[in-house]
This record gives sequence, structure tokens and C-alpha cells, in this order.
Amino acid sequence: MRVLSGIQPSGSLHLGNYFGMMKRMIDYQENHELFCFLVNYHALTTVFDSELLRRQTFEAVCDFLALGLDPEKSVFWVQSDVPEVTELTWILSNVTGMGLLERCHAFKDKTAKGIPANHGLFAYPVLMAADILLFGGEKVPVGKDQKQHLEVAKDIALRFNNAYGETFVVPEPDIEEDFAVVPGTDGQKMSKSYGNNIEIFADEKTLKKKIMGIMTDSTPVDQPKPVEGNILFDLYSLFLDDKDKEKLKERFITPGLKYGDLKKEILAVIWEYFAPYRQEREKIVRDKAYVLKTMQKGANKARQAAAVYLEKAKHNVGLDYRSLL
Amino acid sequence: MRVLSGIQPSGSLHLGNYFGMMKRMIDYQENHELFCFLVNYHALTTVFDSELLRRQTFEAVCDFLALGLDPEKSVFWVQSDVPEVTELTWILSNVTGMGLLERCHAFKDKTAKGIPANHGLFAYPVLMAADILLFGGEKVPVGKDQKQHLEVAKDIALRFNNAYGETFVVPEPDIEEDFAVVPGTDGQKMSKSYGNNIEIFADEKTLKKKIMGIMTDSTPVDQPKPVEGNILFDLYSLFLDDKDKEKLKERFITPGLKYGDLKKEILAVIWEYFAPYRQEREKIVRDKAYVLKTMQKGANKARQAAAVYLEKAKHNVGLDYRSLL
Repeated sequence: MRVLSGIQPSGSLHLGNYFGMMKRMIDYQENHELFCFLVNYHALTTVFDSELLRRQTFEAVCDFLALGLDPEKSVFWVQSDVPEVTELTWILSNVTGMGLLERCHAFKDKTAKGIPANHGLFAYPVLMAADILLFGGEKVPVGKDQKQHLEVAKDIALRFNNAYGETFVVPEPDIEEDFAVVPGTDGQKMSKSYGNNIEIFADEKTLKKKIMGIMTDSTPVDQPKPVEGNILFDLYSLFLDDKDKEKLKERFITPGLKYGDLKKEILAVIWEYFAPYRQEREKIVRDKAYVLKTMQKGANKARQAAAVYLEKAKHNVGLDYRSLL
Repeated sequence: MRVLSGIQPSGSLHLGNYFGMMKRMIDYQENHELFCFLVNYHALTTVFDSELLRRQTFEAVCDFLALGLDPEKSVFWVQSDVPEVTELTWILSNVTGMGLLERCHAFKDKTAKGIPANHGLFAYPVLMAADILLFGGEKVPVGKDQKQHLEVAKDIALRFNNAYGETFVVPEPDIEEDFAVVPGTDGQKMSKSYGNNIEIFADEKTLKKKIMGIMTDSTPVDQPKPVEGNILFDLYSLFLDDKDKEKLKERFITPGLKYGDLKKEILAVIWEYFAPYRQEREKIVRDKAYVLKTMQKGANKARQAAAVYLEKAKHNVGLDYRSLL
């Protein structure tokens, strides 16, 4: 089954990104045909600093490759390296009712937060539909916040097939209810925008500062520590299997545990867990020719897959006047 | 000066198209750098019959080539052969305020006429802006109905240059006030949608029927004929220079002129005027390899010109992560 996943290149990866989405996605490549791409066209709707976008896209490429996305097993590319998606966006726009887009919450939410009400932001769901339909994505794992956009993609596919004949695979939203919610250093959901993020490729000093700064409760050392909603427990657990999680729980409910000691332990665990990835990343960042070649190959594979659906769509709407020649 | 003109491939050409726009535009190529393209992406907003769009695009290609558009002197292509325009459309969308599009009359007018309120129709002015900015069009001759869309293109160019640095030529609308208004067989402006059109490449029998069916007033033969608002006078005049027009006027105000005779004369004039074009067109339609090669060459020239602005725009918004590699 073809699994599709588009990810915003939004800066240094943190534990929330990794355990909430990336790890799981990279795992998909073992049993599925994974199509994974970095959506820099989408990023244009909210990122107006060109140097930042350029840099973040490059960093995200290195992150993914370092963390085990295998360009041989999967198709991995940067969205703007397959500009065909914008052509399909235009084609799909003509079967997309304005009402469908006007009902989308994300546009209203983002503009309410002060992001300029640009047409790109409004048309975002059409580009996302093109992302999916261009590659015949059957399964599209997304969080709840993207559910409506996937319904739009499904609606557009159905309308197109209905108007112009069977053309696109109608995607099935696969809402991942059980994505790990990773707490940030303040206990809220980890997010770059909250500033509570723990970056996985930070240097040791920065990482230490973040970990030691995690908010803890003031339970005295000689008392049992709460487990439920304990940031330290939740973060540590990300790296443990069920058995080790039970052992950790024991330590929490046994008087004597010092949060300070535990933080040092967590720091060591994180540092060690990501050590091979960190080394791999350093190698990749230095080998720019490899990255360039890899991304070029990925884009070529994506373009080949895209051609199937794009040619069909162009024929079915009548753009292929050349077929009369 | 680079003159840009995008034309909808909307079926068999009539005298109104020819004298209202095409002849003038083809004349541009003598003193300007003419960029002329058939906008089949735009047509998708209103034409939902794929066979019709395909056929009309092909016919329009043949019409233009037959009527003297010289692919050596000018750049002539079909819009969808340069899909880069859709990529630029997406990029520009992110500096296009929703308010700017919401104020456009054309969307409201078209939906009021029953054309489905699709997103393509709404986003039409952004695609049109991309059409212009992608080729650095300085002069864009349009009718009054397109004035607002050109103001949108200008506004988008200014906003982009302002946000991301000097990138695009800011186009100057060139509203053609004095386009010839060609009356149809019923006296209204000639238009395919009114059914009052006289096709320039119709066969002789069809043409005769159209011309003989032109509405005339009932002034008796032995009376002077009105010149002002006389369809026959206006149509005949299209083919006459000022001196011959004066002579025609003399014949109208001199009693004895029979409208029936005049119609036969007009039929002969039209038939003769378009005879060389008709022959050329027949040749072209038969030589599909030539048409294919010509359009391919035109598209290549257009893509070369487009690359200059597209690369600059992609760099300026930060899509070129590869520059870091």
C-alpha cells in the first residue's frame, strides 16, 4: 500500500517531531511503499523569510536521511523539485467549489493568529489535494488537525472522477489517534512555537540546559513522586519498553528519587539514543554531493510516479491538444 | 518592447475576433517583441468539455499560424506547454491578499451567469498575473473588461518586489480604447455567444447564408440609405481604406442601392480577403508534423524566457535549498 506523508521543514527537529511522527513514518518504509516529501511550497504560506526557508529545507533533508529514511526503499523528495504538483493544483482548482475551501477551519484559525490572509493560505487545501492525488496515495496518515484537509482532498478526487471519468485514487484519511503526545519542558505539548522543545540534534551543552530546566513538582525527596502527568516520567518513557517503564514507575513511587539525578539520566539516554543519528548527520551534512544526488534521484522517482496521474488528468480535461497532432 | 497577449481558444474565429484583436496583435510583431499564447489553463475555468477544449486549442493554433503569426519573429505557444506558469501562480498566491481577489468583478459576473463558483474561477487573476510576470511583459494590450485583472497583476508585482526584492517587471496596462467594434448579423457586438458571428474560415455556403441573413432596415430602394449604425456599412468598411469608405458612403446616400446586391458584394469581399489565409490554413491543418514542431519550438523559446524570472522568484522566496548544496 502506498503511504504518503508531506512534512513542513520547520527548523530543528525536537523530540515531539521525532516520536510524534517521524519515527513512525520512517518505520512505515519497512512494510509499505513510502512517499515522503518536504513541503516547501506549503511553507511559503507562512514563512516569508527566504533564508530561513532555504536553510530549514536543507536541514530537514539532512535530518530525515540521518534518522534512517532510506532513499532506496522509499521515495523521498523536496516538494518544489516536482513542480508538476502546482500544475495539478491548477487543474483541481476548477473542480473545487469555493464553499469547500471557505469551510476550512485552518485558514480562519491561521488568519486569526495574525498570519496574512493571502490567497496561498486559502488555496492550501487544493495544493494538499494535489500532493496526494498526484501520487495515487491510498493511505495518508495525519493528525486530527489535518482531518478536514484530507476530507477536502477526498471530495476533490470524487468530484474530478465524477466530472471527467475515473482518474484519481480516492484517498482514505488515516487519522492517527495514538500518536505519542510528547510533553515539552513546561508540560504543554512540545512545540517549537511554545519554546518548550528539546532539539534532538542540539549540542550537549544546549541539551543539558534544556533538560535541567524541565519544570518539576516540589514533592520532597523522601516522598513518592507522582507518575501521572509527570514530564520527566513521560519523556523518559519514550525511550523505554513496557518492562523498563514498569521499573521506572517503581522508582517514582519509591521515596528517595531525586529529580535532579533523573534529569541527568534522561540527558544521558537522549544523548546516547541519538548518537548514531548525530554521527550520520554530521557525515551527511559534509557530503553535499551525496545529498544533491540523493534528492535528485528522489525527485526523479517522484516525477515518474506523478506522470501517470498527471498525464491522465491532462488528457481527461482536454489540455492535450497535441494528441490531435 | 515586449508585448504580451494571451488568448482564449474559444472556437471558430469570426470577424469580430479578427478585426477586434487578432489582426492588430499580429501587426505588433513587426515592431515589437510579441509573446502570444493560447490560454488553455484559463479555459478550464469555464470549459468542462475536454473534447471541445482539445479541439478548440488545436483550431486556434492553426488559425493564428494561418493568419500570419510568424513563429520566427514572435514567441507563440500554448499555455499548458509551459507549466512553469502554474508554479509561479502558486508562488504569487502567497503575496496576493484575499481582498484583492474578492474585489474582482469577473468572478462575480461569471458566477451570476451560472458558471460554477469554482476556485479556479476565483484564482483566475493570479494565473493571469503569472502569465504576465513570468515573461517580463511590459505592455499588455487588453480590452476594458480585463482592466481590473491587469491592475491585480500590477499590484501583485509591486507586493512581491516589495516583500522579496526587485524581481518582476511591473506591467503597464495598455487599455485599447479604439479596438474596432464589429457588429454581428443582428447589429449587436459580434460574439459567438450571441450566435450573430460571421466565421472567417466558414465554407462558402455557410458564409453566404450568414451574410444574406444580416438584418437590414426597410428603407425603400429608391431612398438614400442610413449610414450611421448600418450593419452592412460597418462590416464592409472593415475591408476598406478611408478613400474607399467615402465612396461607399456615397453609394449609401445615393438612391437605388439594393441591400441584397450589397450583401453579395460583401460576401465576395470577405471570401477574397481571407482566400490566402484559408489556403494557408488548409495546408497547415494537413501538415501536423509542422504544427507540432512549431509549437514545440515556441514552447521552448517561452520556457527560456520564463526561466529568467522563475529562477529569480524561486531564489527570492527561498525555494532553492539546492543552492546550499
